[in-house]
Amino acid sequence: MRSVDLNCDCGEGFGAYRMGDDEAMLGLVTSINVACGFHAGDPEIMARMFGAAKARGIAAGAHPGFPDLYGFGRRRLPFSPDEIERLILYQIGAAQALCLHVGTKLRYVKIHGALSNIAMVESSVALATARAVKTASPDLWLLVPAGTELERAGLASGLSIAREIFADRAYTDQGLLVERACHGALLEDAEEAASRILTMVQEGTILTVSGKRLPAQIESICVHGDSPNAVAMARAVRARLEGSDILIKPFVLV
Amino acid sequence: MRSVDLNCDCGEGFGAYRMGDDEAMLGLVTSINVACGFHAGDPEIMARMFGAAKARGIAAGAHPGFPDLYGFGRRRLPFSPDEIERLILYQIGAAQALCLHVGTKLRYVKIHGALSNIAMVESSVALATARAVKTASPDLWLLVPAGTELERAGLASGLSIAREIFADRAYTDQGLLVERACHGALLEDAEEAASRILTMVQEGTILTVSGKRLPAQIESICVHGDSPNAVAMARAVRARLEGSDILIKPFVLV
Amino acid sequence: MRSVDLNCDCGEGFGAYRMGDDEAMLGLVTSINVACGFHAGDPEIMARMFGAAKARGIAAGAHPGFPDLYGFGRRRLPFSPDEIERLILYQIGAAQALCLHVGTKLRYVKIHGALSNIAMVESSVALATARAVKTASPDLWLLVPAGTELERAGLASGLSIAREIFADRAYTDQGLLVERACHGALLEDAEEAASRILTMVQEGTILTVSGKRLPAQIESICVHGDSPNAVAMARAVRARLEGSDILIKPFVLV
Amino acid sequence: MRSVDLNCDCGEGFGAYRMGDDEAMLGLVTSINVACGFHAGDPEIMARMFGAAKARGIAAGAHPGFPDLYGFGRRRLPFSPDEIERLILYQIGAAQALCLHVGTKLRYVKIHGALSNIAMVESSVALATARAVKTASPDLWLLVPAGTELERAGLASGLSIAREIFADRAYTDQGLLVERACHGALLEDAEEAASRILTMVQEGTILTVSGKRLPAQIESICVHGDSPNAVAMARAVRARLEGSDILIKPFVLV
Repeated sequence: MRSVDLNCDCGEGFGAYRMGDDEAMLGLVTSINVACGFHAGDPEIMARMFGAAKARGIAAGAHPGFPDLYGFGRRRLPFSPDEIERLILYQIGAAQALCLHVGTKLRYVKIHGALSNIAMVESSVALATARAVKTASPDLWLLVPAGTELERAGLASGLSIAREIFADRAYTDQGLLVERACHGALLEDAEEAASRILTMVQEGTILTVSGKRLPAQIESICVHGDSPNAVAMARAVRARLEGSDILIKPFVLV
Repeated sequence: MRSVDLNCDCGEGFGAYRMGDDEAMLGLVTSINVACGFHAGDPEIMARMFGAAKARGIAAGAHPGFPDLYGFGRRRLPFSPDEIERLILYQIGAAQALCLHVGTKLRYVKIHGALSNIAMVESSVALATARAVKTASPDLWLLVPAGTELERAGLASGLSIAREIFADRAYTDQGLLVERACHGALLEDAEEAASRILTMVQEGTILTVSGKRLPAQIESICVHGDSPNAVAMARAVRARLEGSDILIKPFVLV
Repeated sequence: MRSVDLNCDCGEGFGAYRMGDDEAMLGLVTSINVACGFHAGDPEIMARMFGAAKARGIAAGAHPGFPDLYGFGRRRLPFSPDEIERLILYQIGAAQALCLHVGTKLRYVKIHGALSNIAMVESSVALATARAVKTASPDLWLLVPAGTELERAGLASGLSIAREIFADRAYTDQGLLVERACHGALLEDAEEAASRILTMVQEGTILTVSGKRLPAQIESICVHGDSPNAVAMARAVRARLEGSDILIKPFVLV
Repeated sequence: MRSVDLNCDCGEGFGAYRMGDDEAMLGLVTSINVACGFHAGDPEIMARMFGAAKARGIAAGAHPGFPDLYGFGRRRLPFSPDEIERLILYQIGAAQALCLHVGTKLRYVKIHGALSNIAMVESSVALATARAVKTASPDLWLLVPAGTELERAGLASGLSIAREIFADRAYTDQGLLVERACHGALLEDAEEAASRILTMVQEGTILTVSGKRLPAQIESICVHGDSPNAVAMARAVRARLEGSDILIKPFVLV
């Protein structure tokens, strides 16, 4: 039986602020990318999220981003690849320690926002990311957007990798995400998104804005945690996949 | 031959800011307490300091504090013991990862400023500190002010502990530090401080402001990194101890 | 015809974070307390809120708090009255400049959270607040909780003051707010709160938890912006007052 | 008698951190650019600096920068001109209020670091800066690098402007600063810098790296506050100018 993972960003609040409906998403996904205190998140939220991952038997991931609470990690900040390597290591280490605190283990790393956008196309940043993950622990998986420099860097470094596609984002013909600011970048209709995802998973392709099909290995689907209809979309995607006999489970043994 | 460790706070800059003369101190001490990004420090500085510890064969320690860059970790902030446990874990984890980055291992933890002042007298905070250290790794040592709740918490938790006295701080008859704001709290004469330290190390006692001698095990001496004459004091203390056939070496195998 | 002002906290998001439903509240209140970037808020949000105040003909107020985004200004931080005076001045000045930017004028100041709780009972902090407001501009009003040290400090300093009561908070027999953490501190039923407010406004009294009636001048009613049912409560309070021929208008000429 | 102003950056510490020797510089310059809490500075330091300006009869200026304490305002951050306008307004307003607190008046604005570098060449940012200053108060002067977009924007907006040259920075043939990272960007020899400055002031030209002379109006000389030999350079420049009968005084009436 075919299987695929559903992942979402989680714990992206800060102090009194909340972002997205973590509680609802935790019931729908099988892997959570937990913000690590730089673009969002704090030790309290991290411990809560990792504890929830343990309680539900889903995979705990670290979600490092630029140190940019104001910009929510979505702005490209001027850090060199070496500095980025250390920013990521700092955040993974913090996440590992808070996983131990709740009696679980950090399973994987997925980088956030602008950092991910850069690493998808710049091999120096992708390689810095892979180095950081491998240094923190060679047992960690790297969750990467399918068909990008991050995928190549993960493979080259010998890390276990899982490739993801995005349920709510349109793709260019190069297999990259259409920029958030562009028309049509964000898919809003949950059922439409679910159908598209089912096709991509069944075919092993990425559907692009122009209708092209790019071959891709797909081990995970990202249903974003912070868009207003994230819960509806996660629910629709999950239902459509399960209705087509695709098993939803973590890409890594939990 | 008797031996003792010299430790100092290090890496307490932030971005373009510097605090103390790290370079000079690195040549004088045998253990460094590296700020972890909350009261001071950032990933760049941390990696540099841990790298220097490796290069010089001295012990690398994490120096977690309150998240209070403005107050340099010297203000008592309203966090519960459980929150403090997670603040400390977050910082230790980050430090462990950056140690791996430079090819070394984090050896010990010493908490900073107001956090330490609280943990010296409040057992709930002392125990939270010990739990955090043990969770991060049972191999980590806890460096504690001699004769305090932190010492008791470290022992009770089964951690390896090292007890320190302060070269530049006066002691109350209860064996606590005289508050920074009080007259005479900070010793400024390096030679006088060196003589006092030699006596304390040789006798195994803490000399208090009123001239009392409190018995204490002493495995390390803290020569603060951020006072203006820290370098002179560290040099004087080291010379006086070595001149009396006391070996200066880390309290933990490096 | 009797009249009273409705005020609420506004603009308490930060970057991508939102707090409360500013848009809905703007249609219900006559004065807005705009966060100034320390406990919440940023220049973008401030300009938007002050612009909205201008567009709707409601009074623009500054809402300074402790520099504590993590704690949302609700934690007592260790600042002296003199430091608090400067923290408040900094924030008022920033708010004044952003009012000019959108072509309006800052009318009043209301302090936030823990800062307000302290100033309600500590005259040194209340007086520091009044000094800050008067220094920024003697034309500014000070919006104060009725019957507190802040009211006394405002009067003593010769500032124009408006006294407020809280629609969603219970009162002790001393006329202070029951602490948030205590049972019954937050009123949740909008209709019940509206009835209580109507009584207080008509009688000129504060109703306490034990049923006492404390005489009080009431020029404004605070309908908190960040509680989940703030919009329902503001709507109910407004309807009940208007239904009893009480005019809802700003306490200051706009 | 010819006169010129000497200005420097001041108050660029934060909390326990210090940057440069403010005390020494205050005795040598006639205008101070006080950091406003975004790239450096805090309300305590600001009040102290503005108080010192008053006490010494020198001109108090605001020195707004990007919100980037980690990067000390030297990194180009992704803000639009409209956002920059509001960032600057926020900081000017805060500075104005703290000037009133110490009984003085803010006289001028000079923007900092990367923000200034951008505004020197991008007219949209230069115009946003001028708009911010004019909105805060049309009485404020704008202190600008001679021969740049900022000068043009200031003139176009009808602000009073003063043009400055830098004592410790080399100039390109376009009249721009050689980038800090480039060889020869920073002049280190105080006497050499003093001679060069005297020539530029006497001739009304900017001397470039290739030896060209660009005509320029010069009303102020910036002697940077944060370089290690800033005090020596300020002293040398001041002595050389005074020795050639050039009066050192603020460009604006204090």
